[in-house]
Amino acid sequence: MGMTMTQKILAKHAGVDSVSPGQFIQADTDMVLGNDITAPVAIKEFKKMGAEEVFDKSKISIVPDHFTPNKDIKTAEQCRMIREFVGETEIENYFEIGEVGIEHALLPEKGLVVAGDVVIGADSHTCTYGALGAFSTGVGSTDMAAAMATGKAWFKVPSAIKFNITGKMQKWTSGKDVILHIIGMIGVDGALYKSMEFCGEGIKNLSMDDRFTIANMAIEAGAKNGIFPVDEQTIDYMKEHSKREWVEMSADDDAQYEKVYDIDLSSIKPTVAFPHLPENTRTIDNVGDVKIDQVVIGSCTNGRISDLREAAKVLNGRHVAKGMRTIIFPATQKIYLQAIKEGLMEIFINAGAIISPPTCGPCLGGHMGVLADGERAVATTNRNFVGRMGHVGSEVYLASPAVAAASAVAGKIAGPEDIGV
Amino acid sequence: MGMTMTQKILAKHAGVDSVSPGQFIQADTDMVLGNDITAPVAIKEFKKMGAEEVFDKSKISIVPDHFTPNKDIKTAEQCRMIREFVGETEIENYFEIGEVGIEHALLPEKGLVVAGDVVIGADSHTCTYGALGAFSTGVGSTDMAAAMATGKAWFKVPSAIKFNITGKMQKWTSGKDVILHIIGMIGVDGALYKSMEFCGEGIKNLSMDDRFTIANMAIEAGAKNGIFPVDEQTIDYMKEHSKREWVEMSADDDAQYEKVYDIDLSSIKPTVAFPHLPENTRTIDNVGDVKIDQVVIGSCTNGRISDLREAAKVLNGRHVAKGMRTIIFPATQKIYLQAIKEGLMEIFINAGAIISPPTCGPCLGGHMGVLADGERAVATTNRNFVGRMGHVGSEVYLASPAVAAASAVAGKIAGPEDIGV
Repeated sequence: MGMTMTQKILAKHAGVDSVSPGQFIQADTDMVLGNDITAPVAIKEFKKMGAEEVFDKSKISIVPDHFTPNKDIKTAEQCRMIREFVGETEIENYFEIGEVGIEHALLPEKGLVVAGDVVIGADSHTCTYGALGAFSTGVGSTDMAAAMATGKAWFKVPSAIKFNITGKMQKWTSGKDVILHIIGMIGVDGALYKSMEFCGEGIKNLSMDDRFTIANMAIEAGAKNGIFPVDEQTIDYMKEHSKREWVEMSADDDAQYEKVYDIDLSSIKPTVAFPHLPENTRTIDNVGDVKIDQVVIGSCTNGRISDLREAAKVLNGRHVAKGMRTIIFPATQKIYLQAIKEGLMEIFINAGAIISPPTCGPCLGGHMGVLADGERAVATTNRNFVGRMGHVGSEVYLASPAVAAASAVAGKIAGPEDIGV
Repeated sequence: MGMTMTQKILAKHAGVDSVSPGQFIQADTDMVLGNDITAPVAIKEFKKMGAEEVFDKSKISIVPDHFTPNKDIKTAEQCRMIREFVGETEIENYFEIGEVGIEHALLPEKGLVVAGDVVIGADSHTCTYGALGAFSTGVGSTDMAAAMATGKAWFKVPSAIKFNITGKMQKWTSGKDVILHIIGMIGVDGALYKSMEFCGEGIKNLSMDDRFTIANMAIEAGAKNGIFPVDEQTIDYMKEHSKREWVEMSADDDAQYEKVYDIDLSSIKPTVAFPHLPENTRTIDNVGDVKIDQVVIGSCTNGRISDLREAAKVLNGRHVAKGMRTIIFPATQKIYLQAIKEGLMEIFINAGAIISPPTCGPCLGGHMGVLADGERAVATTNRNFVGRMGHVGSEVYLASPAVAAASAVAGKIAGPEDIGV
């Protein structure tokens, strides 16, 4: 029986010729990832299991990005514990603030993930790296601990849903609108424990940044992973960022899919996910009159340079609405620097936005923009669950950088065209 | 009997011809200030006393700068309460994040304080505005509440200490070294409830930014206020930033001072205050070998453009030591923008520093860089009390931006010359 991209990667890493959906396998990992929330738990488990050395110093990444620069003593202590562990085990891919960024933007940028890899991370949005043609998925901290010691992880081989992408996106739509559209269509459990495999001639019209955004939110449809085929853009990206060799895994012609959806990019409109689930989507022409208090542009989902460029196009020469708190948080220091060089940061500050250093903070209500009771935010982040960005009485509306920026100017949910861009 | 600058300002605002040290007076206030920690307390008191309207909508400033962008739900709720109060009372000088900065840098920049003013603020570093020839001092939240309602505040007229400034500073010394030198000399209670009045021909060699830094830390010597005479630089600053009229108050020739100190600027060396008091000063050639974990450059004390320029001179083309967390936090959005335009931000990021938006956060262990047990920071902030920046087992060393930047590169306390700048 033919295999999907995901299944082929898993089979290779399990050292077998083929795998089938539902089969349990143990696979080698090419990268094991943790952050400042999950790594401390994993480190405790690692020590509890009597492990002393990690399986490969070059294949573990720890990125302190959630509560950094540290928001309080507790998180400072957790980071101190990580640093001590990194010192003891000589893990190579530890990134101090200043070198750092949000983990899921940083690892591809540093060339630590390439096509064909198996990557696990103690963070649900580890699925981001599927954009590069890797199998990557979120795991618990205990799995991270075991993998740090052994280099291996257990998986149930997922079945797959195929998304056949055609056409080309209209102006002011982006990868975020594509994935919100898909989640709106299939629901937050629409791909439960399955692979979302994206293919079709329309893929070439999706930039790498679009693909990262789409793969990043596969988990929001319940997927085990999301994955894209390797094409010229992927290869260019990997050549630019990585020195590692990659393996291109194409799905077999007779690969099995539980469902196939056709997605015509040209039909997708700017899309907003209303509270309190990413599946509660409405197109921009159906959002009604929703006043907002805060706009957040950034995160592992939409904090890349193309996202900042889109936001800057909208904010250039305009000012955010009176009383609007607009927070821009680039995903990495490299992106931050590039945004300065391109003049984007000046545009943001002149527009009345503030710029946060790279941190996951606001996305998870961690710090740097927590919401009070009754407040509403439009965010380019990935989750709008109850209380996600603060008080349980607050609301989060998920959207693209272009819509978020336009909403900041309008003071209510709006698309760029609504404010005359 | 002749009066000091401070006494003359207080007499005028009390509507009397003269005042004497120790006398209790009620004076009119030209500006009443609060932040996101103190204003919520003041607002509750204001309502408790049955007040509904503020005495003058243009003479109250509320600046949410301590825990913003909000670090958690509690602080978000406090800011929400402030916004509601501002809406009810129509206070004019409320600054949302994006327009905001650290209060004591923001008010002069916005032209809200000029020479001859009486300013009270529910924040101890309100004494900063003495740099402009104003009487300004920190008060409790209850005093802020009463002043919001009545426009008046009670004071015991302070006696004064005179600092006769001569000479010119050497390279790599700045206002921070001057005030640390003075506090080292007179102690943290050396000016208890007194005015520190700076005068002499050396004043002209102190930039406005130097003067803000010096006045800012008057409270660290226990002073009621610190104050500078008005000269050409002051007038230029006020003309550039304010549309208000100012009143120049000179000390009488026969003004009484409890003590007079002569300060020769040319004799001052870069100075560091060791834990846990600002008076524990050592000159840079006597600091020994103190390894550090974090460097913090910014704050109401040293987050102005000249401070960032000094730090950038040191960091340009260099990189912070391995593992060093270096956090730059400009004091206002305007300063942030200027630093981008001058290329300073690129220098900082290339050096491995991260840039925080304007916030008091790290200075008071609030957020954006809290220290863990046993960690040491060199900070350009104003206090190094036990636990000031985080864990009670952490340590803070106060220094100028130049010394802080050099220390970031060296990995231990160092001056620019120690790293070959």
